[in-house]
Amino acid sequence: MALSKPLEDLMRLFERFPGIGEKSARRMVLFLLQQPKGFSEALAEGIRKCSSSLHPCSICGNITDDDPCSICSDPFRDKSTLCIVESVEDLITLEQAGIYNGLYFVLGMLYSPLEGEEVSPQVLERLVKRVSQGDIKEVILAFSPKVEGELTMNLITSVLDPLPVTVSRLSYGLPVGGSVSFADRTTLHAALEARTCLKRGEGRQ
Amino acid sequence: MALSKPLEDLMRLFERFPGIGEKSARRMVLFLLQQPKGFSEALAEGIRKCSSSLHPCSICGNITDDDPCSICSDPFRDKSTLCIVESVEDLITLEQAGIYNGLYFVLGMLYSPLEGEEVSPQVLERLVKRVSQGDIKEVILAFSPKVEGELTMNLITSVLDPLPVTVSRLSYGLPVGGSVSFADRTTLHAALEARTCLKRGEGRQ
Repeated sequence: MALSKPLEDLMRLFERFPGIGEKSARRMVLFLLQQPKGFSEALAEGIRKCSSSLHPCSICGNITDDDPCSICSDPFRDKSTLCIVESVEDLITLEQAGIYNGLYFVLGMLYSPLEGEEVSPQVLERLVKRVSQGDIKEVILAFSPKVEGELTMNLITSVLDPLPVTVSRLSYGLPVGGSVSFADRTTLHAALEARTCLKRGEGRQ
Repeated sequence: MALSKPLEDLMRLFERFPGIGEKSARRMVLFLLQQPKGFSEALAEGIRKCSSSLHPCSICGNITDDDPCSICSDPFRDKSTLCIVESVEDLITLEQAGIYNGLYFVLGMLYSPLEGEEVSPQVLERLVKRVSQGDIKEVILAFSPKVEGELTMNLITSVLDPLPVTVSRLSYGLPVGGSVSFADRTTLHAALEARTCLKRGEGRQ
């Protein structure tokens, strides 16, 4: 192999990103070299800026350059609803969908006993404190529907049990736009269990 | 959407790369933020360094920080064989495979009349000049097997016709490790046409 060192060094760095393999990294570096110089300047600067100015919001755990973050400090958000998510990535996904106007709490992990991962008592304490403060009336659990998500929901539901708040979770069912024939058995089962009534039978006796 | 500006700016920049969509860009930025600060420093620096120090080799067109590049100036490479590739990406792919020890010539494009792309006379002139110089005995055309590749091969073969060099192309056939049942018709046809004789029938008359 006879690649020049700066090229190879940068490829190795790009390869460290999740989902970026050797070929993608190579393509990225070559793309970079074809762009006007302003692009790589902006990229290098953007990376520096992100890594120096961003940090977790002290209230919700969202990534932010202010503190509290723009969600926590937004006067127009519904302060009575708190959505608990596994990660900032999930928070961003929900935000970008534009379907939720309440507040968030980033748990940072799921309870995964098989991998020896517990939700630390400190995090649970922070959560209880957060839910006790302010006007939270409903806590929505928005974890991915898998074993770890279910276990974490059980844990949080029991931890929040003493508090006078409603706890709900996202519904499970057919993904909209998906097809019945492609749905797996567990999803079909969930969709059947949680079926929505469209017309209620009148008593005819 | 309530993402902080540095985060969103960097996501937009990552999204400009080929093969990087919104979700991958988001994941990349969040990954970056989880790394030790040294990583983002190294990345920013690597990007700056690449964009400031790399340029095409004046002999072959490979991307390099020296001139001529490390391949052209390597005394141990076979100077009698010149492999013509479409792009630096293809050159790197061949180099990383470690199967070729000759020199290269990066054409930079393919002849694609349907998209109105011609190989410029200047490039062809450079190619003829390159092949005439030194001790080139064989020119290997290593283009992707598609219409544009074939047209470019025809063009180059005719351009090099007056010169006393052998011109060859990579063989077409079943990809090794692939399966007959997954091969497309054109590949099967090529594999049949270019079949390799394993035992020659002896005359028995």
